[in-house]
Amino acid sequence: MRSTPSSGSAALPRPLRGIIPPMVTPLLDYDTLDAAGLERLIEHILGSGVHGLFILGTTGEAPSLSYRLRQELIERTCRQVNGRVPVLVGITDTAFVESVRMAGLAADAGAAAVVLAPPYYFAPSQTELLEYLEHLVRQLPLPLFLYNQPSQTKVPFEIDTVRQAAELPGVVGIKDSSANMIYFHRLVALFQDRPDFTLLIGPEELLAEAVLLGGHGGVSGGANLHPRLYVQLYEAARDHDLDRVAALHRQVLRITSGLYTLGGPAAGVSKGLKCALSILGICADFLAEPFPRLDPSQRTRVEQELRGLGLLSE
Amino acid sequence: MRSTPSSGSAALPRPLRGIIPPMVTPLLDYDTLDAAGLERLIEHILGSGVHGLFILGTTGEAPSLSYRLRQELIERTCRQVNGRVPVLVGITDTAFVESVRMAGLAADAGAAAVVLAPPYYFAPSQTELLEYLEHLVRQLPLPLFLYNQPSQTKVPFEIDTVRQAAELPGVVGIKDSSANMIYFHRLVALFQDRPDFTLLIGPEELLAEAVLLGGHGGVSGGANLHPRLYVQLYEAARDHDLDRVAALHRQVLRITSGLYTLGGPAAGVSKGLKCALSILGICADFLAEPFPRLDPSQRTRVEQELRGLGLLSE
Amino acid sequence: MRSTPSSGSAALPRPLRGIIPPMVTPLLDYDTLDAAGLERLIEHILGSGVHGLFILGTTGEAPSLSYRLRQELIERTCRQVNGRVPVLVGITDTAFVESVRMAGLAADAGAAAVVLAPPYYFAPSQTELLEYLEHLVRQLPLPLFLYNQPSQTKVPFEIDTVRQAAELPGVVGIKDSSANMIYFHRLVALFQDRPDFTLLIGPEELLAEAVLLGGHGGVSGGANLHPRLYVQLYEAARDHDLDRVAALHRQVLRITSGLYTLGGPAAGVSKGLKCALSILGICADFLAEPFPRLDPSQRTRVEQELRGLGLLSE
Amino acid sequence: MRSTPSSGSAALPRPLRGIIPPMVTPLLDYDTLDAAGLERLIEHILGSGVHGLFILGTTGEAPSLSYRLRQELIERTCRQVNGRVPVLVGITDTAFVESVRMAGLAADAGAAAVVLAPPYYFAPSQTELLEYLEHLVRQLPLPLFLYNQPSQTKVPFEIDTVRQAAELPGVVGIKDSSANMIYFHRLVALFQDRPDFTLLIGPEELLAEAVLLGGHGGVSGGANLHPRLYVQLYEAARDHDLDRVAALHRQVLRITSGLYTLGGPAAGVSKGLKCALSILGICADFLAEPFPRLDPSQRTRVEQELRGLGLLSE
Repeated sequence: MRSTPSSGSAALPRPLRGIIPPMVTPLLDYDTLDAAGLERLIEHILGSGVHGLFILGTTGEAPSLSYRLRQELIERTCRQVNGRVPVLVGITDTAFVESVRMAGLAADAGAAAVVLAPPYYFAPSQTELLEYLEHLVRQLPLPLFLYNQPSQTKVPFEIDTVRQAAELPGVVGIKDSSANMIYFHRLVALFQDRPDFTLLIGPEELLAEAVLLGGHGGVSGGANLHPRLYVQLYEAARDHDLDRVAALHRQVLRITSGLYTLGGPAAGVSKGLKCALSILGICADFLAEPFPRLDPSQRTRVEQELRGLGLLSE
Repeated sequence: MRSTPSSGSAALPRPLRGIIPPMVTPLLDYDTLDAAGLERLIEHILGSGVHGLFILGTTGEAPSLSYRLRQELIERTCRQVNGRVPVLVGITDTAFVESVRMAGLAADAGAAAVVLAPPYYFAPSQTELLEYLEHLVRQLPLPLFLYNQPSQTKVPFEIDTVRQAAELPGVVGIKDSSANMIYFHRLVALFQDRPDFTLLIGPEELLAEAVLLGGHGGVSGGANLHPRLYVQLYEAARDHDLDRVAALHRQVLRITSGLYTLGGPAAGVSKGLKCALSILGICADFLAEPFPRLDPSQRTRVEQELRGLGLLSE
Repeated sequence: MRSTPSSGSAALPRPLRGIIPPMVTPLLDYDTLDAAGLERLIEHILGSGVHGLFILGTTGEAPSLSYRLRQELIERTCRQVNGRVPVLVGITDTAFVESVRMAGLAADAGAAAVVLAPPYYFAPSQTELLEYLEHLVRQLPLPLFLYNQPSQTKVPFEIDTVRQAAELPGVVGIKDSSANMIYFHRLVALFQDRPDFTLLIGPEELLAEAVLLGGHGGVSGGANLHPRLYVQLYEAARDHDLDRVAALHRQVLRITSGLYTLGGPAAGVSKGLKCALSILGICADFLAEPFPRLDPSQRTRVEQELRGLGLLSE
Repeated sequence: MRSTPSSGSAALPRPLRGIIPPMVTPLLDYDTLDAAGLERLIEHILGSGVHGLFILGTTGEAPSLSYRLRQELIERTCRQVNGRVPVLVGITDTAFVESVRMAGLAADAGAAAVVLAPPYYFAPSQTELLEYLEHLVRQLPLPLFLYNQPSQTKVPFEIDTVRQAAELPGVVGIKDSSANMIYFHRLVALFQDRPDFTLLIGPEELLAEAVLLGGHGGVSGGANLHPRLYVQLYEAARDHDLDRVAALHRQVLRITSGLYTLGGPAAGVSKGLKCALSILGICADFLAEPFPRLDPSQRTRVEQELRGLGLLSE
């Protein structure tokens, strides 16, 4: 039996609605957490009414971090959040045993759920993927969100696989980062009679329509930087206030166009967000290998964008 | 300073010529090494005059294994080989720190070199990949082979990246598993004035032409099962004995067509080889998650193939 | 100078708003138009208040048709429509000369505009693609819509290419069939100060959000079968009536899930639509090579779907 | 019944062995053949003992040419060749009717065979592709070579499809431009008991090994420029003269590295070859849309390469 978590733990709503930022991982160097920056970042995010916090996802550079550092991050984050919102922990791994081990650490620390994309070196068939999930959920101490991210993992969770996986014990929702809204709409249709199954959208450019058309919320990278904007957009979409949705959606596009494309296609979101957070004095902008931080000229452009967004004074 | 390896250690020839089998990892269950099977397998392979042994590659299901098991495999293998041939250890990882740690374990155990594909979750640019290599080689206690495997890692080592990487201290060769012979020929042309830089081909169907046209050898999966065949093919190609090459090449194609396609595209090589090795009583056929072993009807077909190859008596 | 069209010709609104069905091409055999079916189909579609008609697109199997048949289709369609709505004609081709020639035929017949995806055998760079457009528009007698369809053409119109192409004389809009809503939102943002530039969405599952968030309408395949549904969904989205949008959107998903997936991934839309239209007695279900019509058991499933949709009596 | 060809016609050997250059299409502008250049080019190529001539392939920019020009090219080429070697004519098209029509023109002109890749806009299944071939061969007046070119057509001829297609009347061989030597070796194994079925390799970098290991010859783009080199390499490989093979193979790599990469990835072979042929005074370097000729600085580099190859005096 698991010991009592060392910190407060939030219950997991079913479904989980709202904005669950995929937190960047503040680093001082390639294997050192920026512990003070982490505290400031968590307070910055939680201060705007977000509905959860997701660590060790793609934006959090999870696969690039040592296991030791991942454990430290889980523990520090859960302690700092201290039950104010549910903490979701990414346990995606090519190795089954390491996913299970990470889930145990998350449970010990007081996380509310774990999040898992398909193993991403080999490309299993959907049958193999489903069988893997069946084996895995038996060993998980926490509820599980699926994580559809085929651009990184090569293998999607096909709709019929999600349908079957949703019958497994402990599988409570899916985060879809495929950027394929046809897929997302099919999920909404599939689960229309199962309102407790959480449907979250990854790409923040798609948050508006996902919520307008039946999704529960978003795992929006930009909420690291400007959490209030994403909470407001979520609320406007939930309330069918389309004029407000349009205006806030435009701001989101401005962030993604302005900040995420500077550092090239790979890890562009993390590069842009860390640079911006560093400019705002929230945390360091070091990235895990194999990625460099944005260079000084790119940083200058980020500063301009932040001024344009009203996040940095002139 | 590194302690003396606990077992004999073979020097690494420059270039490394011949057959270096990518060993499957014998498993009893998803986190238990088949230690007795491992010993039998190593003796089976080494009994036929191979020129090295590569563990923790794709055929070895490395990314699917727990770190604990990887360490055990490194130590047991190096002890069993005991310096008879150079042992190469795969250290490919999405996390820089874990690659470095695994390289340290390999050095401690007496391995001769390490082998590394690009980190495979994020897709770095070639510039980022090269910078990553520069950072990495500073921390490696052993010579490094690059491992080009874009179908799994999404990112290739482009020719010009290899050219620059070959200038870094400790980078001694490349294993090319792209199945793109135009790429391999370009490597041969690139390194024609650097005869110490090792050029090994991955796919065994391409071993003949790789050696005929300037490569040094192959990392042939089928050499787990039938090491003599691959050693003979290597020697025939090296000696320009084309009639013999043609006959042996046909046998290799028979193995790959007959054994590797039964279990679907993913991990088909490991599935077929483990099944065959299990039929021959060498080691267990359990596969690491997310893959199942071949089913009984597929196993019957493998038996037929083994009879056709003369590896199993009627 | 062009002669006067032989039939009535509708002016092209700027922007073009609403539903512009991509018409299937009724065939009796592989090179014979179903002329009577074509007339019935056009009347069926136009009877429900659509805002245009697009022929010789992907749904219309244009690349699979002989040039003789394409010409016949253009002429018959324009004559039958007779100016009631603007007719758009696909001129996508691998051969520049054939695109120009087809555009001339369209102008002669009274079409309102032409539609062009990138040439699709070779994959030009964006620079080459833009230069090609510059050369092409000089020779076109009609306004041009770009057609973004990278899954078939391999090459997208990147956002910046669209930006530059929109400055060329005669380029009046884009039809985006990429199914990538992030891309579509970027187009909306790009053209927010150019309200005459038409932004149409291809995949009908994305019609709702495209119109809710700034697009002008859709080129919806299902409007061949059930034009009223798509007109209503367009109007509901335009009027921000989200409850109605949700209900109609669900019906659209039912059509796409029920009809378009029966015949495999390739040409599934045309296969499903032609089968349904044939059941309803509107036109024949023959498909151009290399595709077969749906088989009898699939046809039975289409009948069931049509009953479920209320389009076929019990 | 077909009328007698207007010019001499060469019999088609079974198998067809040797070098069959895929001729570039000399153009004066986007729809005007360089007729004098065409004559010079044919004489240049045929003067070195090649074994056939292939027009209207990828190197010949076939899909980019108007049908009128394609017809003119077929007629002029067959007249000029006048039966000295078999002429093969590409009839690949997205439209079945146009493929059949082009095959008729080829037969009328005295061509020996036609060559066909899968239709390349839609991506048919292998079952659909085979049925399409069954329909097509009934209407072809000439023997057919399959053309495997998945990078352009998206759809390969899978091995089992080739096996079945080879049973259809008139299907006499395959040209494989996939650059996948494992695929080519499987073809060799598949047809080892049918020695009349021709197996040709597309990429010239792979000519040596294709012939060394059982293939019949190559459709080598560089043979437009330097036909003697490719004929010599073919003969050396056929004769198992490996030292000579190695030396000639290095020259081929020099051509492909030096000439084909200057103009970017698309149509790089045609760009480089046409530039070189223009420098040598053989034909014009105009390319069909959407591609520009090489620019002056690239042309200077081509001149340097030609000097290095001994094809241009200092």
